[in-house]
Amino acid sequence: MLFKDYETIVFAGDSVTDMGSTLPVGDSPLWDALGNGYVREIDSMLNAFYPEVHVRVVNSGVNGNTSTEMLERWQRDVLDLNPDYVSLLIGGNDVWRQFDSPSYTGQHVLPDETEKSIRKMIEMTVSKVKKMFIISPYFMEPLKDDPMRARMDEYGAICKRLADEYGCEYVDFQGMYDEYFKYRHPASIAWDRMHPSRVGATLMAREFLSHCDFDMLHKPE
Amino acid sequence: MLFKDYETIVFAGDSVTDMGSTLPVGDSPLWDALGNGYVREIDSMLNAFYPEVHVRVVNSGVNGNTSTEMLERWQRDVLDLNPDYVSLLIGGNDVWRQFDSPSYTGQHVLPDETEKSIRKMIEMTVSKVKKMFIISPYFMEPLKDDPMRARMDEYGAICKRLADEYGCEYVDFQGMYDEYFKYRHPASIAWDRMHPSRVGATLMAREFLSHCDFDMLHKPE
Amino acid sequence: MLFKDYETIVFAGDSVTDMGSTLPVGDSPLWDALGNGYVREIDSMLNAFYPEVHVRVVNSGVNGNTSTEMLERWQRDVLDLNPDYVSLLIGGNDVWRQFDSPSYTGQHVLPDETEKSIRKMIEMTVSKVKKMFIISPYFMEPLKDDPMRARMDEYGAICKRLADEYGCEYVDFQGMYDEYFKYRHPASIAWDRMHPSRVGATLMAREFLSHCDFDMLHKPE
Amino acid sequence: MLFKDYETIVFAGDSVTDMGSTLPVGDSPLWDALGNGYVREIDSMLNAFYPEVHVRVVNSGVNGNTSTEMLERWQRDVLDLNPDYVSLLIGGNDVWRQFDSPSYTGQHVLPDETEKSIRKMIEMTVSKVKKMFIISPYFMEPLKDDPMRARMDEYGAICKRLADEYGCEYVDFQGMYDEYFKYRHPASIAWDRMHPSRVGATLMAREFLSHCDFDMLHKPE
Amino acid sequence: MLFKDYETIVFAGDSVTDMGSTLPVGDSPLWDALGNGYVREIDSMLNAFYPEVHVRVVNSGVNGNTSTEMLERWQRDVLDLNPDYVSLLIGGNDVWRQFDSPSYTGQHVLPDETEKSIRKMIEMTVSKVKKMFIISPYFMEPLKDDPMRARMDEYGAICKRLADEYGCEYVDFQGMYDEYFKYRHPASIAWDRMHPSRVGATLMAREFLSHCDFDMLHKPE
Amino acid sequence: MLFKDYETIVFAGDSVTDMGSTLPVGDSPLWDALGNGYVREIDSMLNAFYPEVHVRVVNSGVNGNTSTEMLERWQRDVLDLNPDYVSLLIGGNDVWRQFDSPSYTGQHVLPDETEKSIRKMIEMTVSKVKKMFIISPYFMEPLKDDPMRARMDEYGAICKRLADEYGCEYVDFQGMYDEYFKYRHPASIAWDRMHPSRVGATLMAREFLSHCDFDMLHKPE
Amino acid sequence: MLFKDYETIVFAGDSVTDMGSTLPVGDSPLWDALGNGYVREIDSMLNAFYPEVHVRVVNSGVNGNTSTEMLERWQRDVLDLNPDYVSLLIGGNDVWRQFDSPSYTGQHVLPDETEKSIRKMIEMTVSKVKKMFIISPYFMEPLKDDPMRARMDEYGAICKRLADEYGCEYVDFQGMYDEYFKYRHPASIAWDRMHPSRVGATLMAREFLSHCDFDMLHKPE
Amino acid sequence: MLFKDYETIVFAGDSVTDMGSTLPVGDSPLWDALGNGYVREIDSMLNAFYPEVHVRVVNSGVNGNTSTEMLERWQRDVLDLNPDYVSLLIGGNDVWRQFDSPSYTGQHVLPDETEKSIRKMIEMTVSKVKKMFIISPYFMEPLKDDPMRARMDEYGAICKRLADEYGCEYVDFQGMYDEYFKYRHPASIAWDRMHPSRVGATLMAREFLSHCDFDMLHKPE
Repeated sequence: MLFKDYETIVFAGDSVTDMGSTLPVGDSPLWDALGNGYVREIDSMLNAFYPEVHVRVVNSGVNGNTSTEMLERWQRDVLDLNPDYVSLLIGGNDVWRQFDSPSYTGQHVLPDETEKSIRKMIEMTVSKVKKMFIISPYFMEPLKDDPMRARMDEYGAICKRLADEYGCEYVDFQGMYDEYFKYRHPASIAWDRMHPSRVGATLMAREFLSHCDFDMLHKPE
Repeated sequence: MLFKDYETIVFAGDSVTDMGSTLPVGDSPLWDALGNGYVREIDSMLNAFYPEVHVRVVNSGVNGNTSTEMLERWQRDVLDLNPDYVSLLIGGNDVWRQFDSPSYTGQHVLPDETEKSIRKMIEMTVSKVKKMFIISPYFMEPLKDDPMRARMDEYGAICKRLADEYGCEYVDFQGMYDEYFKYRHPASIAWDRMHPSRVGATLMAREFLSHCDFDMLHKPE
Repeated sequence: MLFKDYETIVFAGDSVTDMGSTLPVGDSPLWDALGNGYVREIDSMLNAFYPEVHVRVVNSGVNGNTSTEMLERWQRDVLDLNPDYVSLLIGGNDVWRQFDSPSYTGQHVLPDETEKSIRKMIEMTVSKVKKMFIISPYFMEPLKDDPMRARMDEYGAICKRLADEYGCEYVDFQGMYDEYFKYRHPASIAWDRMHPSRVGATLMAREFLSHCDFDMLHKPE
Repeated sequence: MLFKDYETIVFAGDSVTDMGSTLPVGDSPLWDALGNGYVREIDSMLNAFYPEVHVRVVNSGVNGNTSTEMLERWQRDVLDLNPDYVSLLIGGNDVWRQFDSPSYTGQHVLPDETEKSIRKMIEMTVSKVKKMFIISPYFMEPLKDDPMRARMDEYGAICKRLADEYGCEYVDFQGMYDEYFKYRHPASIAWDRMHPSRVGATLMAREFLSHCDFDMLHKPE
Repeated sequence: MLFKDYETIVFAGDSVTDMGSTLPVGDSPLWDALGNGYVREIDSMLNAFYPEVHVRVVNSGVNGNTSTEMLERWQRDVLDLNPDYVSLLIGGNDVWRQFDSPSYTGQHVLPDETEKSIRKMIEMTVSKVKKMFIISPYFMEPLKDDPMRARMDEYGAICKRLADEYGCEYVDFQGMYDEYFKYRHPASIAWDRMHPSRVGATLMAREFLSHCDFDMLHKPE
Repeated sequence: MLFKDYETIVFAGDSVTDMGSTLPVGDSPLWDALGNGYVREIDSMLNAFYPEVHVRVVNSGVNGNTSTEMLERWQRDVLDLNPDYVSLLIGGNDVWRQFDSPSYTGQHVLPDETEKSIRKMIEMTVSKVKKMFIISPYFMEPLKDDPMRARMDEYGAICKRLADEYGCEYVDFQGMYDEYFKYRHPASIAWDRMHPSRVGATLMAREFLSHCDFDMLHKPE
Repeated sequence: MLFKDYETIVFAGDSVTDMGSTLPVGDSPLWDALGNGYVREIDSMLNAFYPEVHVRVVNSGVNGNTSTEMLERWQRDVLDLNPDYVSLLIGGNDVWRQFDSPSYTGQHVLPDETEKSIRKMIEMTVSKVKKMFIISPYFMEPLKDDPMRARMDEYGAICKRLADEYGCEYVDFQGMYDEYFKYRHPASIAWDRMHPSRVGATLMAREFLSHCDFDMLHKPE
Repeated sequence: MLFKDYETIVFAGDSVTDMGSTLPVGDSPLWDALGNGYVREIDSMLNAFYPEVHVRVVNSGVNGNTSTEMLERWQRDVLDLNPDYVSLLIGGNDVWRQFDSPSYTGQHVLPDETEKSIRKMIEMTVSKVKKMFIISPYFMEPLKDDPMRARMDEYGAICKRLADEYGCEYVDFQGMYDEYFKYRHPASIAWDRMHPSRVGATLMAREFLSHCDFDMLHKPE
């Protein structure tokens, strides 16, 4: 498996990452400090299936964060934690406000600014860690004609482009959900098409770990 | 205007009608008893713009109701209130559970049962009131390829067919929203695409009142 | 309509404006941040009836504010928001404390001070915005012999005089309510004769918008 | 003083009598069981100024009660308590609903019904007690042109007429407040013009006790 | 009556004065800001019986205050309010802690320190006000053999001596209660023998006002 | 020690026994079900010092109970639990209401009724258990001139007389407190002189156990 | 995979199964109705990894249930739900009370009674379902010298014996935990050694599903 | 007895000492300021059995403290209180985190650091007090093969060694519990094997006081 004994991975992001974790940073396995989303599921699978490896999982998600706000707290809430690995899932709110609050342009983060912020976060990080994961923001709408889905795809393309440019590992949650929605309707995962149920968290955890040489059937001998 | 002094209109339905009203029936203008949705907006417009006419507005919405459950409480929560007019908006949950809880078939209400229940409610009512309104259930998804939207349209068609058959007034909330979504994304009205914000409630109130010979500019002379 | 795409209007005032909005300033359409009074109704009508125009509505009301307190926070809570339009409804508490707390003269704001504060707020603002609205404070007591109503009329006259002097748009909520109370008793709008029910909010919104070339029947073609 | 050692007086009424007392009947001096209105003040003055006399004061007020509802619980909540004296203050809600909920006629209690109910309560009671007090319902509006005040006066007249007819003691709270409002505005007692502050409760207590041969200066020798 | 139009009286003290008033200073007649003890009763009697005189009553009691703590906040919470009259009731906690927390000597305030603090407060005040009232601390224990009662009497004697020395008005709550307990047991006023019920508050208010040329029977002509 | 392995002792009484235990009967050592008073302390000492003996302790105290109310629930809340030992501490409220609520005679339980009720409880019990304990009600007032203390002593004498008559074990909490108050003031145990602090609970537990051949120094060998 | 489209599996048990699910039966995927324990994880894995199969998962766990109490509600809470599969995990509380409440023998369920109850539940069920799972109760104490662990093993042996006798599928949670505790201390899963963290829930879900021909790597093609 | 009139003892530690006491320091016998653990029991026994001696007991426990964190607040929360005696019970969390959060090494306090911190606290203290007590940290696991118990014993040995080196009084809670668990299972004291029930608090109090020349049978003559 990718992660070695006593390494640290920090998951940075917005409410989709946070999901009730301790603010600003959930850095303990106790008292639901890691929240109830995909970060918790990843932690559960790591500890359940690889008990012989000790990985420190940290949840650095904060509700409502845009990429601009994520950048502002990057040093304090990510780098200062001395991670060996960093995962970044951001951009959802950059897009969402354009559609749920269209008159409040001060809350919209346009593609250029998003790209600039993510680029900056990568540059601050990539040389200091063993690997950086860039996760695509997603909208649980499989119909690509939906304007918010189309807009989200623009931001996902930025993420993919930057990941490639800097040699980060790109994790495609949007693509994973597109596959899933061939069988189930998005309402079964999230009424608001953003914040996943536990089923969604499990899907996201497995998808993420598939990029980490993680064996779902592993037991220590 | 359609409604005359001291007449009563009862709005029956599910959570979209209820929106925090007193349970099971909100029968007072005080203390938010009428909830915060389209029923409250209709009441506000009636009282604000036609103060010379006194209309008793009653909210008989209950969260989560399917058409089957609506029928079960029809006598007690609608007819026993001696309405002059009745409005029915039902069917949303009949469809929603098929998509957010696909494995729990016991919670699904299929078209035949929905039709039977609505027919029964109309037959119990139509001869006793001056007019009955049948409102289309809706899904705030303008893309008709979405399977839940497509399914909702089936139920809307049932409502329209029954309204025509029995001479009820058909109010097309789905069509009204389709027009609106040419200009705004559904996320601006409802993240879950079901429970309207106050903007949605205002839209729905104006649409309903447009079937009632109601003049938005009226002032008593 | 008066407001153009992506313009901002800030509504300043006391509890009648605030009505549960985010403090000190409600600057988002989400989570009831705009409160439940006339500001919310104006926002709802703007968004519901003119979806092709995007107007940013901001609620800058704070419970209990006198004109003195409003002036103190004017720069931060109004001008710093870069409004294109500003509306001011103040003075109610200046008067009310004279009648409900007659022995506590430190809480009374007398006409001279009120006039001086409103004049100052107008002068700080009028050259920076496209239009400033001055709304009359009101007391929902149609009998002009009532001493508090008589006193409130003095303050309303100050507002009208200043609006005329500086070319502001004067909106007469007191006159609008006087008309309404020919048909209904004040108790139907507010037991305390100050804080309007949703019916009152709807009345106030329509009155305000009648000064904005707003068409209640408008739909985008 | 009128009341003798170990006699019981029951105060019946609506929210003005109740004021937070234990429901349905506050029959203890402990834990605010007597509420915070005029009944509590009367109890305080009795116990403070006449410690050598032990009077059991019972609060049988229930929020929102009309005269119809008061009659329904008369046997259980008044007569079954074996009072030596009974006080009745009712009718406020009979009138109020006609003005704050004008479209909801089912909640209005018209003069004939009010008279019938009060007459019935008197007849059930008067021969069983040493004295029955009938208190006028009131509206804290000194201007008699106000339609709700005018209407309240009709109900006050009914109370006075019945008190005279049956030899009950009539206590004129409306008249007492009219005197008071020559010096203070109603807003100083009650924003809603119904539920008195502690100042109002003190006024009402002194007025009531002035019908009971009560000496405000009394100390036991 | 002693107090004239628009004069201010500040009541300073501990929890017996505070009784739920706004902290640190209750300076408004609204929203129970004056608490529920003797200060509130005095305010109620003043406003109810002398409506033609406007007296500003301020509650400057803070739970748990010893005389040492009272002195520390004297300038801010009493003198800065520009009183015409000041009342001080302190010392109860100085004594109580000696009996309920005998091992915690750091919380005990001994007679010398109490005397020094009260003297200091009088000296800071007496030349700036029309009259200063010194109220005796009390313990609702009529048996003078009780050691806490005996100790409290020492503190009361200090208060009386200082009042005499500086020409303050001495109000003897302990003596008043001693009279009352000839007829009733202390448990009827306070289980803890300190914090009075409303009956006690009424007793204390009448006692205090008897030092103010206040007529309980007064009505404005 | 008196109690043998797997025997049951039920403590019946009022709030002094209850002290937050599960209602009506605390029959588990978990989740504070035994409350926080002397019963809990007895349970703690039994389990801590005699771990080799398993005694089931049950708290059957209910707040506010008089002897009359205790008798009404005796069969259900005491005898039906199949105790080997029963302890009864009752009568405090019989007396207290005579002093804190002197006008409410319906709440007073006079000596004859108390004696009759306790006698009945003893007769229902004494032949079915190995031993019955009768504990004296007490008032934490060492001065016997206090009328409530004097009254409580009458009830204590009834308890002692009945205990002697029926061969019950009499436990004298009043006497134990009288001893204690030679060194400390009652305020150090209870401001209200009834409900003991944990210090009081410890005193009461040791006193009770001194009647049970319980060795405070015992350890299992 | 074992489960086919639209089949139902009911998980019966105590708090370990319940883990916050709706009471008495969590029969919906929405609103955390399935709780937060192993049942929820099984549901998440089923829906995440096999979206083409629709399995209705029902949580019928109730906190604190012993096998005796489980049997009492078996018909209503398990069989009446028409399951295709039933899983039973019971006995933990039968044992726990013997060690945390040793004096309260009425709460202990001894092996004979446990066996009788489980046998009865199996006999009521086994012929009506496609498969019944019997899960071993467990104690997260790997040291078999611990008397509670040893006792739990007796109950586990009963479960295994009955599973074999009736052809049920035996799932050995105790054995699975014993393996896990070779690498981690029990404190990492549960301070109380009973109620698993999410790591424990994930372990239990994988173990259970390994008996169901479930492929952790499955994706629908 | 060891403690003399008006001496102070401060109990420093983590959650086992804190048990709900006021934070950071519980320095009053009132309002549960001393918490509900062994400190409270010690205070209760001191006051109950030796009323003629006044000992100030202070609870300076803080939940979750490691020895490192205890050291950081030692000056402020222990020495600045001017104790005559100090008790220190620390180290439990140093060990626990190694087992319940094995991947989070930043939270582990290893033996060297623990020893250094405790040594520092002793050196800061021992010359300023009459006696310092060092209590062994403990784990309520009697089986010494358990790795967390074995680890805890290492820390206990450090404590003993340091106590001996500096002439402190060593109190062996681990040994006391080992004796107790010959008769009862740890689950009867604490499900989590750390935070004692009231039975455990009583055991710990008696054990501590046995080092203080305290006589459980003492009564003042």
